[in-house]
Amino acid sequence: MSTITIPDGSPFGLDNLPYGVFSASDSQKRVGVRVGDTVVDLAELLRDDVFAAPTLNPFLAQGRERWTRVRTQLRELLTGDVLEAAVHALGDVVLHLPFEVADYVDFYASEHHASNLGRLFRPDAEPLLPNWKHLPVGYHGRAGTVVVSGTDIVRPCGQRKAPDEDAPTYGPSRRLDIEAELGFVVGTGSPLGGRIGVDDFAEHVFGAVLVNDWSARDLQAWEYVPLGPHLGKSFATSISPWVVPLPALEAARVPLPGQDPAPLPYLRGKDDWGLDIDFAVEWNGEVVSRPPYREMYWSPAQMLAHLTVNGASARTGDLFASGTISGPEKHQRGAFIELSWGGREPVTVKGEERTFLLDGDEVTITATAPGPGGSRIGFGEVTGTVRPATP
Amino acid sequence: MSTITIPDGSPFGLDNLPYGVFSASDSQKRVGVRVGDTVVDLAELLRDDVFAAPTLNPFLAQGRERWTRVRTQLRELLTGDVLEAAVHALGDVVLHLPFEVADYVDFYASEHHASNLGRLFRPDAEPLLPNWKHLPVGYHGRAGTVVVSGTDIVRPCGQRKAPDEDAPTYGPSRRLDIEAELGFVVGTGSPLGGRIGVDDFAEHVFGAVLVNDWSARDLQAWEYVPLGPHLGKSFATSISPWVVPLPALEAARVPLPGQDPAPLPYLRGKDDWGLDIDFAVEWNGEVVSRPPYREMYWSPAQMLAHLTVNGASARTGDLFASGTISGPEKHQRGAFIELSWGGREPVTVKGEERTFLLDGDEVTITATAPGPGGSRIGFGEVTGTVRPATP
Repeated sequence: MSTITIPDGSPFGLDNLPYGVFSASDSQKRVGVRVGDTVVDLAELLRDDVFAAPTLNPFLAQGRERWTRVRTQLRELLTGDVLEAAVHALGDVVLHLPFEVADYVDFYASEHHASNLGRLFRPDAEPLLPNWKHLPVGYHGRAGTVVVSGTDIVRPCGQRKAPDEDAPTYGPSRRLDIEAELGFVVGTGSPLGGRIGVDDFAEHVFGAVLVNDWSARDLQAWEYVPLGPHLGKSFATSISPWVVPLPALEAARVPLPGQDPAPLPYLRGKDDWGLDIDFAVEWNGEVVSRPPYREMYWSPAQMLAHLTVNGASARTGDLFASGTISGPEKHQRGAFIELSWGGREPVTVKGEERTFLLDGDEVTITATAPGPGGSRIGFGEVTGTVRPATP
Repeated sequence: MSTITIPDGSPFGLDNLPYGVFSASDSQKRVGVRVGDTVVDLAELLRDDVFAAPTLNPFLAQGRERWTRVRTQLRELLTGDVLEAAVHALGDVVLHLPFEVADYVDFYASEHHASNLGRLFRPDAEPLLPNWKHLPVGYHGRAGTVVVSGTDIVRPCGQRKAPDEDAPTYGPSRRLDIEAELGFVVGTGSPLGGRIGVDDFAEHVFGAVLVNDWSARDLQAWEYVPLGPHLGKSFATSISPWVVPLPALEAARVPLPGQDPAPLPYLRGKDDWGLDIDFAVEWNGEVVSRPPYREMYWSPAQMLAHLTVNGASARTGDLFASGTISGPEKHQRGAFIELSWGGREPVTVKGEERTFLLDGDEVTITATAPGPGGSRIGFGEVTGTVRPATP
């Protein structure tokens, strides 16, 4: 038997207990929970085959009552001695994509980000379009290119055309960017023709991950009218390996910054909460931005209610992300196109003036939230290194 | 043993042999092939477990060489006597979604449709946006709401705002529409960071289905800037139950109508072909439109090459659709918003003046293509009936 030590001040204490999928050298992929710097094999610990799976999906599909029961059980079991075979040092395992992504929707829920992008993409018009304060604007992304943190990002090729060029050219993106976002993982879905009401969020959503929605701004600017972003986004979206369960974020709930005009009734909950999560964006190891999730205009529950109000079904493994998190201050912007104001105001990174990503650059997004009694809840990180375009 | 009779002139002769998933009263879902009005159980006929699956995906994943071998084998076996247990009358089986949809992308490949929609959605601007003739514009749709023909379509609710209204209102869509399209099913995919070249189409694409991309025009018009269509489309997309294999469409290949300006090299194949497929759209049993697929501007191979040129991976079960098929003539328009010119020029259906869909309306899209020696290749149909909105 083995006792798990949790380092003092670890954001992975018993109030967090995020789930992931790992493999040790001698084993297949299976579900584990992170405690301190230890990964506990739940198939071993709980002797339940639902965790001997290569994705979280079978557990997600079991629903909220079961999630609650397992969480209660883990908080008990992990304070005592644990079967040696269930315990792995974090450094000894490989972490995998934690769940199979069904559909992926990306929202656009930060007023500061949407206003900044409006000014940059449509300089002669109002920055916020007329619908923006009435509904959480969003679109479907490519589920098949959601990858786990640590996956290399190959610079995408495609068409781009600067406003002063006559015709588009083809080649590697010259304006490769990131978007720091929070993603929500649907555990139990809803049927076709049904809806998930704004107050039913916790019945359906299992937890949250960090998201880096890599973006090729030159491809995007040329392609995005009238059907929205496509190849400028679809080459890769990275997520953190640990899914932080919703109950771990209870102490982080805060009121929304305020919605004016009041949204339509289907978007008004008894309990419209945001989340007080502090993000940090590191570019080659230097923190260049600290986006505050608490500034987001639309709540996670409003996003999900909107997503299904037309009767679209939701499925286990659906992922919906917040869109770039940007605060009102310059150092709170969650995308480099905003930080460098379209490339016109370079950012100093390790003493060099930088605008968009160069080959070899590494971006790491981390986040923590308040937990009970002054503790912190960690999300870990989502990281990726840019590799040269495939010829 | 039993001999399969193929009615004279059937578009489901031995040159077609489309694949689907069916269940008979006493059996689980499995893969079958349609011959005349007969469904042949391939798990029984070929004694191969890959066909004893509830989706075509395992067979799709086996790749082109295997698809070719099975097709050759079937053309031989089905001319002789067939094991009685493998044979079902079409009327005795239930047809299911033929494959599990991985990612769903919808293109916008008809110049006539894109121009018509441009005139209707942006009356004060050039109908075609500057990118349209340089790349096949497309976007991701919701894979989880792709349903098989025959599934009822619940009228979606959502936000809509007429130009003369101050604020949006919520309720059932008042402008429910269809889009008649052709969809392509990816059999074998490509890795992240790789590409599918414009000449490699047949290595990856298994076959084609009919698609009805149901559209709520009022929801779409209000939501679609700047990130494209979302809830106006995501409530349901219907596909035909039979996947017509690519080799069955060889006699239907035709030159494209012509591309000016010439597209960038990655979109230029040795062999840029379109398809001569005649569609018919029936509204409550009356044919209201005959969209000609041969008029499409972008080729299927160009769509797939574009989809992956940025290094996005493709997966078994990916579905990409052409976008609405509209020809130059009014009676060739594949969406009711075009046929009724935004609702201003009603269409006569069974003696009634109609614009958009009413509850209880049924829409059926059918299509056939030329086969070898004067025969026809049938796609069957994609049909659906509109049900009232869920309160």
